[in-house]
Amino acid sequence: MRFISEQRLDDGVLEREFTLGEIPGTLWTPASAAPLPLVLMAHNNGLPKADPRLVARARYTAARGYAVATIDAAGCGDRPRSAADEQVRAELGRAMRAGEPVDELLESLVGPMVENAVPDWRTTLDALLQLPGIGGPVGYSGGWAALGIRLAAVEPRIVAAGLHAGGYVPRAQREEARQVTVPLLLLLQWDDEGNPRQRALDLFDAFGSKEKTLHANLGGHTGTPWFELEDGCRFFDRHLK
Amino acid sequence: MRFISEQRLDDGVLEREFTLGEIPGTLWTPASAAPLPLVLMAHNNGLPKADPRLVARARYTAARGYAVATIDAAGCGDRPRSAADEQVRAELGRAMRAGEPVDELLESLVGPMVENAVPDWRTTLDALLQLPGIGGPVGYSGGWAALGIRLAAVEPRIVAAGLHAGGYVPRAQREEARQVTVPLLLLLQWDDEGNPRQRALDLFDAFGSKEKTLHANLGGHTGTPWFELEDGCRFFDRHLK
Repeated sequence: MRFISEQRLDDGVLEREFTLGEIPGTLWTPASAAPLPLVLMAHNNGLPKADPRLVARARYTAARGYAVATIDAAGCGDRPRSAADEQVRAELGRAMRAGEPVDELLESLVGPMVENAVPDWRTTLDALLQLPGIGGPVGYSGGWAALGIRLAAVEPRIVAAGLHAGGYVPRAQREEARQVTVPLLLLLQWDDEGNPRQRALDLFDAFGSKEKTLHANLGGHTGTPWFELEDGCRFFDRHLK
Repeated sequence: MRFISEQRLDDGVLEREFTLGEIPGTLWTPASAAPLPLVLMAHNNGLPKADPRLVARARYTAARGYAVATIDAAGCGDRPRSAADEQVRAELGRAMRAGEPVDELLESLVGPMVENAVPDWRTTLDALLQLPGIGGPVGYSGGWAALGIRLAAVEPRIVAAGLHAGGYVPRAQREEARQVTVPLLLLLQWDDEGNPRQRALDLFDAFGSKEKTLHANLGGHTGTPWFELEDGCRFFDRHLK
């Protein structure tokens, strides 16, 4: 892991860009004498790690006493995409504008994207836990619920997951949710335009976790109220601190 | 309002029993220089105000900086019940043991109970707001969702409501929920044996509030996790302080 830039934010959090082989990432850490718990934070479906909503959540979470890391995994953010991916994305855009069903297109786009992202996230996790000052335990926080499900199912170091239900979850991860047993907080926007409410409720039902909580709020996809950011940190406080 | 006993609890909260005409009640207040916001707290369907779960919630909430009050309204707790009420309760017990449908029995029991409880609660609210040290604003917190809906619909002094979905909500209150517009936190136990999940989700959907949040947790009727107590106080902190 090679740090390529750093800046100290107003609240004392250190924001550092890094590369790990081909993987670009960002790490936020507050000043701390004790080893920090770690939160892996991923944006949905390949949105870039510099997306302002993700960065705002990461900085807030770091200021609450966590090391927070995000990456552009394979095929995500500014990293190269396959010709096949580009074709599906173009077709998806066309279908959405035309108001046609998009489930099968999303399945063919997001399914492989999740599969391909997991190795990069695990490689990053290995490297992060080698850094001085980061001790774990490890949580996953993300708009990208499907990736969180897959990571929580295959990665025993993840001990808690805070997920947003708004985003396409491939059939494989809807099944895999049964294998997720870590404490879970699932956020749902009650009137999320593109994401059927019942599918999110079924997903919540499917998780194998003994401790699982759903927070549903009125409003559309991007309308999650600010207090859910604090609730998310308090969820991690219970399980990572 | 006449105080008939008082004790100082370990955490400094003062617990006082009172009577107001025929209404017996309990008031918990923390030491405070400033006027306290007020939380009205009701247990479901006429359970007594001394029920340990209600008392624990009330004491916790008071220690967080609220005046908290509960009463046994007409027909509730140890107050006299009509012969008709006793008969419906006996029939309800029989039907539940026999595994028969109980909706119509609950409708005929809980519907009038809510109607009859409201005047006592409003009388109590009038008296509480006359006390030195209690300034409002006023919230409602309750296992008794149906009463909360009715009170929030008719009582403009109530500015926020935290409700448990586990309990029969009469048809009138399911309709009345549309008239409730104050910020709302609804708790749902995902596997509540006697309370159909879909009915609770429909109720959440029905509320007229622009800010409404559903917290659903795995488990049965009495399994609400402890952290919801804290979440409930934080909800009131946002709206009453």
